[in-house]
Amino acid sequence: MATYETLDKESLKNLKADLEAQYVAVKEAGIKLDMSRGKPAADQLALSMDILTTINKESDLTSIDGVDCRNYGVLDGIPEAKKMMGDVFGCPAEQVIVYGTSSLNIMYDTVSRAMTHGVMGSTPWGKLDKIKFLCPVPGYDRHFGITEFFGIEMINVPMLDEGPDMDMVEELVSSDPSIKGIWCVPKYANPTGISYSVQTVKRFAALKPAAEDFRIFWDNAYIIHHLFEEKEMQDEIPNILEECEKAGNPDMVYQFGSTSKITFPGSGVAAISSSKGNIADIKKQMAVQTIGHDKINQLRHQRFFGDYNGLMAHMMKHAAILRPKFAAVIETFEKELGSLGIATWTNPKGGYFISLDVMEGCAKRIVGLCAEAGLVLTGAGATYPYGKDPKDSNIRIAPSYPTPEELKKACEVLVLCVKLATVEKMLAE
Amino acid sequence: MATYETLDKESLKNLKADLEAQYVAVKEAGIKLDMSRGKPAADQLALSMDILTTINKESDLTSIDGVDCRNYGVLDGIPEAKKMMGDVFGCPAEQVIVYGTSSLNIMYDTVSRAMTHGVMGSTPWGKLDKIKFLCPVPGYDRHFGITEFFGIEMINVPMLDEGPDMDMVEELVSSDPSIKGIWCVPKYANPTGISYSVQTVKRFAALKPAAEDFRIFWDNAYIIHHLFEEKEMQDEIPNILEECEKAGNPDMVYQFGSTSKITFPGSGVAAISSSKGNIADIKKQMAVQTIGHDKINQLRHQRFFGDYNGLMAHMMKHAAILRPKFAAVIETFEKELGSLGIATWTNPKGGYFISLDVMEGCAKRIVGLCAEAGLVLTGAGATYPYGKDPKDSNIRIAPSYPTPEELKKACEVLVLCVKLATVEKMLAE
Repeated sequence: MATYETLDKESLKNLKADLEAQYVAVKEAGIKLDMSRGKPAADQLALSMDILTTINKESDLTSIDGVDCRNYGVLDGIPEAKKMMGDVFGCPAEQVIVYGTSSLNIMYDTVSRAMTHGVMGSTPWGKLDKIKFLCPVPGYDRHFGITEFFGIEMINVPMLDEGPDMDMVEELVSSDPSIKGIWCVPKYANPTGISYSVQTVKRFAALKPAAEDFRIFWDNAYIIHHLFEEKEMQDEIPNILEECEKAGNPDMVYQFGSTSKITFPGSGVAAISSSKGNIADIKKQMAVQTIGHDKINQLRHQRFFGDYNGLMAHMMKHAAILRPKFAAVIETFEKELGSLGIATWTNPKGGYFISLDVMEGCAKRIVGLCAEAGLVLTGAGATYPYGKDPKDSNIRIAPSYPTPEELKKACEVLVLCVKLATVEKMLAE
Repeated sequence: MATYETLDKESLKNLKADLEAQYVAVKEAGIKLDMSRGKPAADQLALSMDILTTINKESDLTSIDGVDCRNYGVLDGIPEAKKMMGDVFGCPAEQVIVYGTSSLNIMYDTVSRAMTHGVMGSTPWGKLDKIKFLCPVPGYDRHFGITEFFGIEMINVPMLDEGPDMDMVEELVSSDPSIKGIWCVPKYANPTGISYSVQTVKRFAALKPAAEDFRIFWDNAYIIHHLFEEKEMQDEIPNILEECEKAGNPDMVYQFGSTSKITFPGSGVAAISSSKGNIADIKKQMAVQTIGHDKINQLRHQRFFGDYNGLMAHMMKHAAILRPKFAAVIETFEKELGSLGIATWTNPKGGYFISLDVMEGCAKRIVGLCAEAGLVLTGAGATYPYGKDPKDSNIRIAPSYPTPEELKKACEVLVLCVKLATVEKMLAE
C-alpha cells in the first residue's frame, strides 16, 4: 500500500470508513489486555521458582564473613551480595550498597536526602530557590514522578540515536548551577530501547558542571537484559564509574540497578554503586534510616545464582522468552505500518520496551482507541515530564507481559488504531 | 550488707581496694560479650526456621485477592498481611500499610516526608524556622537519631511510673506550635520496660496541640512481646487509634510496628497504622517512592502464622526463652545491689530491656569499666537525645542475646562495676 500522504481526500474517507468497520469488529471481539507496564510474564517468573527453596529450614544462614543473616545488622549488604551486584555494575564490592527490593526507592531516597541534607556537604537542595533536572525524552515516567514530587523543575532533552543530545546537556550543565541532576537509562533505555554510544558515555563522564553537587542518576536497570545470546547482538557501553574517575569526576555519578526483572519484581535486591565519597555520604544517612536491609533475601539471591556466570545464564532464559515477543511486535509494525509513512519505531536488542512514534497529535487518540477496545497501553504523555508529550506522538510498548498469542492480537488492535487515528487527523486538517 | 551511704571513708577505701582486686580478676578471666542491642538470641531465631519453607517452589503465590505476589504491584501490602498486622494493632486492614522489613525506616520516611511535604497539606517542616519534638527519657536512641538527623530540636520529658510526664506534655504541646511530634514506645517501653497507664493513653488522645500537624509517633514495637503467659501478668494499654478518634483527634497518631523480633530481624515485615486521612496522605508519597514492597515475604509471614492466634502462640515461645533471662538479671541485681542503696532498676513484664539507674555521674564510668572487662553495654547517654544523659545515671540492659550462662557472668561483671564506680565517686566527693 502507498504512504498515507499520497492519498487524496476521497481515498482517505474510504479508508477511514473501512478502518472504522474493522475497529467496530475488534471491539465486538472484545479483548482485555494490560500492556501498560514492563512486567515479566508468568513463564519468566517460573524461571526463578527454585530461588524459593535456595534458602530453607536446613540452610546455614551465615554470610561469608560470619554474620548470622537472620539477625540485626549489616548496613550496606552482605559481602557476597555486594560482590554479585558489583560484578553486574563492573565495580569493586566496596563501591556498592545493597538495599531492599526496589531501585526506584533508592533513587527516591537519593533525591530526598539531597533535598534535606545536600550532597557530600553541599547546601540542601530544598534550601535553594530553584532546582532543575535534565530529563532525556522520551524517558521513564517514574523518574519524572520523583523529581516532580520534590518540586524540581524538569527540562526536556531530546533523545537522539546515540543517547541524549549531548551538545544541549553540556551547554546546560556547564552554565546553570541550579541544574543538579540528569536522569539516564543508558542501556536499552526506557522506552526507546537504544543504548548510549561510547562517545555519549565519555561526554557524560567529562561534563564540567556549574554545580559541584550535580549528579548523573545513571539508572542501569537493563544492564544485563539482552535479548540475544550472540555477543555481537548485545549492546555494551563503557563503565560510567571508571570513565568518571578517568575524567577527574569520580563523584559525579550514582548508578542504580536491581534484580527486579531477573528474579521476582518486588522481591529482588536493589543496589547503588558510586564513588567511595558518595558511598560514605549515603551510609551516614542509612545509619539513621535503618538497621539494615533483608540479608536473607540477599543470601537467597547470591546462592541461587552462585556467581556472575550463573546470573548471565539465567538472563539468557529470560531472553529466550522475550525475544519472540519483541520480534512479533516489530514484524507486525513492519508488515502493517512499514510502507505507510505514518509511524516509526525502535528495534531494541534488549530491555523491556519498544518506542513507537506516530503522527503528531495522534498518540493520545491512539491510546484512547486501544483502551476502548480493551487494550491498556502506557498512558500517552507518560514518557515525558509532567505527563506532557509536546508533540503528542510517543507511545511506549511493553511486550513482555502478554503471551505471544495475546501479543499478536494486541498488535493488530494497536496498528489498526494507529491507522484510524492518523486518517482521522489527516482528514481534520 | 549496709547501704553505701552509711559507710565511713575508711570503710569505703577498704571496699574500693577489695572491689578493685575483684575487677582485676574479672578482667583476667576475660569475657567477651556484646549486650549493646536488643537482639534476639540464636534459640529465638531457631523458632522461625520453618518460615523459610512456608513458601517454596511448589507454592501458589497468589494473594487472597488474586494477585501474583511474584510480580510488580500492590502499594500498601497484600490483604492478608494488612489484616494480620491490623489484628496486631487492633484496627481494620484499611488503616494499615505494610512496608518492607523495617519500622525504623517507616518512621524515618514519615519524618522525612513531613520535612519535605508537610503533613496532610501543612507547610513542609523543612520550610519552618524551628521544629521541635518531645522526647520521653530515657528512650530509644534510634528515634532520637532520626530527629537529630533532620535538625529537629529535642526536648526531654521525664518518664514517670505511668508513662511520660503528661502535665509537661500537655502544657508544651498546647502552647508551642513548633512542637510537631513526640516519640513514644507505649508498651514495654525501650528502655524502661514500663507500659503507659490507661490514663496516660487517654491524655495523649485528648491532647489539644497548638500545631495542626502535630503527630504522636507511637512506636508500638513490643505490642505483643509479653514475658508471661498469664493474662494478669501481661500489660495491656488502650487502643490509641480508637482513643484518638473518640477524643476527636483521629489524625493525631501514627502507629508503627514490625515482626522484627517475632521472626527474623531485618527480614520481617513492618507496618504503619493510622487514620484514613493519614493513610491516604502517606500513599500519595509511596506511589512515587516505590512500586510496592516485598509481597512474597508478606505472604510468607501470613501463611507461617495463619492468624493472630498463631502469632500469639509463637510469641509465647519467645517468652519462654526470654523470661529466665530477665529473671536472672533482676535476681542478680536484687541479690548484689538490693541492699546497697546505690541503684534502682525496672522489672518489666515484656519487651527487650531493663533500665538501670545508678548514682548520678556514674553511668559512663560503669559502661567504661564493663567495656574494659570485655562486656559491651549500650553506650551511656544513648537513651537520651544527643547522647547526653544530664545526670549520667541511666544504663540500658539488653538481656536477650546472651545465653543464660553468659548473662550470669555479664551481670556479675556489671554489678561489680556498679559498686566500684559508686565507691570511686563517693570517695571523690
